[in-house]
Amino acid sequence: NLAEPSKPTKVQELHVYEINERDRGSPAVLKLSQKPVNSLGDLVPFTNKIYSGDLERRLGITSGICVLIRHVPEKKGDRYEAIFSFYFGEYGHLSVQGPYLTYEDTYLAVTGGSGVFEGAYGQVKLRQLVFPFKIFYTFYLKGIRDLPPELVGKSPVAPSPDVEPSPAAKAGEAHAIIPNFTN
Amino acid sequence: NLAEPSKPTKVQELHVYEINERDRGSPAVLKLSQKPVNSLGDLVPFTNKIYSGDLERRLGITSGICVLIRHVPEKKGDRYEAIFSFYFGEYGHLSVQGPYLTYEDTYLAVTGGSGVFEGAYGQVKLRQLVFPFKIFYTFYLKGIRDLPPELVGKSPVAPSPDVEPSPAAKAGEAHAIIPNFTN
Amino acid sequence: NLAEPSKPTKVQELHVYEINERDRGSPAVLKLSQKPVNSLGDLVPFTNKIYSGDLERRLGITSGICVLIRHVPEKKGDRYEAIFSFYFGEYGHLSVQGPYLTYEDTYLAVTGGSGVFEGAYGQVKLRQLVFPFKIFYTFYLKGIRDLPPELVGKSPVAPSPDVEPSPAAKAGEAHAIIPNFTN
Repeated sequence: NLAEPSKPTKVQELHVYEINERDRGSPAVLKLSQKPVNSLGDLVPFTNKIYSGDLERRLGITSGICVLIRHVPEKKGDRYEAIFSFYFGEYGHLSVQGPYLTYEDTYLAVTGGSGVFEGAYGQVKLRQLVFPFKIFYTFYLKGIRDLPPELVGKSPVAPSPDVEPSPAAKAGEAHAIIPNFTN
Repeated sequence: NLAEPSKPTKVQELHVYEINERDRGSPAVLKLSQKPVNSLGDLVPFTNKIYSGDLERRLGITSGICVLIRHVPEKKGDRYEAIFSFYFGEYGHLSVQGPYLTYEDTYLAVTGGSGVFEGAYGQVKLRQLVFPFKIFYTFYLKGIRDLPPELVGKSPVAPSPDVEPSPAAKAGEAHAIIPNFTN
Repeated sequence: NLAEPSKPTKVQELHVYEINERDRGSPAVLKLSQKPVNSLGDLVPFTNKIYSGDLERRLGITSGICVLIRHVPEKKGDRYEAIFSFYFGEYGHLSVQGPYLTYEDTYLAVTGGSGVFEGAYGQVKLRQLVFPFKIFYTFYLKGIRDLPPELVGKSPVAPSPDVEPSPAAKAGEAHAIIPNFTN
């Protein structure tokens, strides 16, 4: 089987906004450490909405869990181990794992995917805009065929704390969603 | 190191039945949301037995956790983020992550493996037969050498709610197990 | 994109010691099964320090969660599903998933990485030296460029229950750390 064509290694960028619109009961902060300050033992399952980088299409959701690792007093923040997926309706999903720091941008690993993301690997940059409600991600994906234009969209809106999805995307109008967007 | 042989990209199918025989104390439903309906915050660690697609060999177990993401009333079911592994005795294991919906078939990502599954990637189809006791999986694996015939078995038994492992496999008889099957 | 150079498949070994110095409040044993014996339902978030295989440099930390799967009375131990990452300061991180048995060495899957570990795959051998305080790991990594000599270090110290990091590494002295080592 070594004669088969090799896995594509071209890097494709994909921009995604994750926005907590406070309508999904997320995050669920489980203070299992039973300590007043955030501590190892606390767990945070979460699910938020995701939009295309141009903010003109609702794509789906994130879904997963953050494991609180350490409160970092000198940064007035926390370190989490994040284990979650991004869902893109009929196109499939991407799974990721790595650091989520409430005070600093990080890179997470892309651990796999399904559908058009089958065989995906690489990393994703997490850029926090408004803690913990708006995050901008840039995926650097390898191992997959060219991404559908609908997912890539136009040039991304420059990340800032003020960004908002288009009203049509937020409302889930037919021209502002992808097929069977995940909810 | 770019002169090395490339990773094999041939797709190999592997069929596995996961069966909850109610003898492992699984699943452990942790109602941490403290809400009456299934909600974000609930966690479900689980471990079930797995058999070859022809139902003639006990292979090992599944082991992992489902994170409840959302109750979906219109489907009378739930969405989970599933993070778990399949154990195949001395042959090693496969780790997967993705969606588990109690009302619909899904595809999960293969995120890696050990032993004969070292370097595995691809996806796996999850087909639910009897919620939550019988599931049929078809792995589409790349990145690995030819699978051992013992894991692949004969043609899979057609998935249906009535399937049962052979009595010898269920009893763990010597000719109906793989070496050091995981328990 | 199939004309791109293929992913490197050379195997690189990386040795890491994980040591619980009892100064991070780890592990957090969450007895959510509410049973006296370790049982499915118990969760164990953890974070320990990691050192280079030659024990002369502090590299960073581990961070993640162990899901208790089964108490194994005949081995006087437990089976866990382990989902965690290794952090190497500015060099990035590696994510892994697989079996952690308190009574036996195991292999886990490398599911991905960031930074110099972007695109990493393969497996890692877990060798327990002192339960649960000292573990020796040997990574067998593919898919990445040559590792920085600073991470690889000199030949690893032979694993034994008595190994200790060098006093300079333990103290985090400037010559005994990597850049921005993770803490």
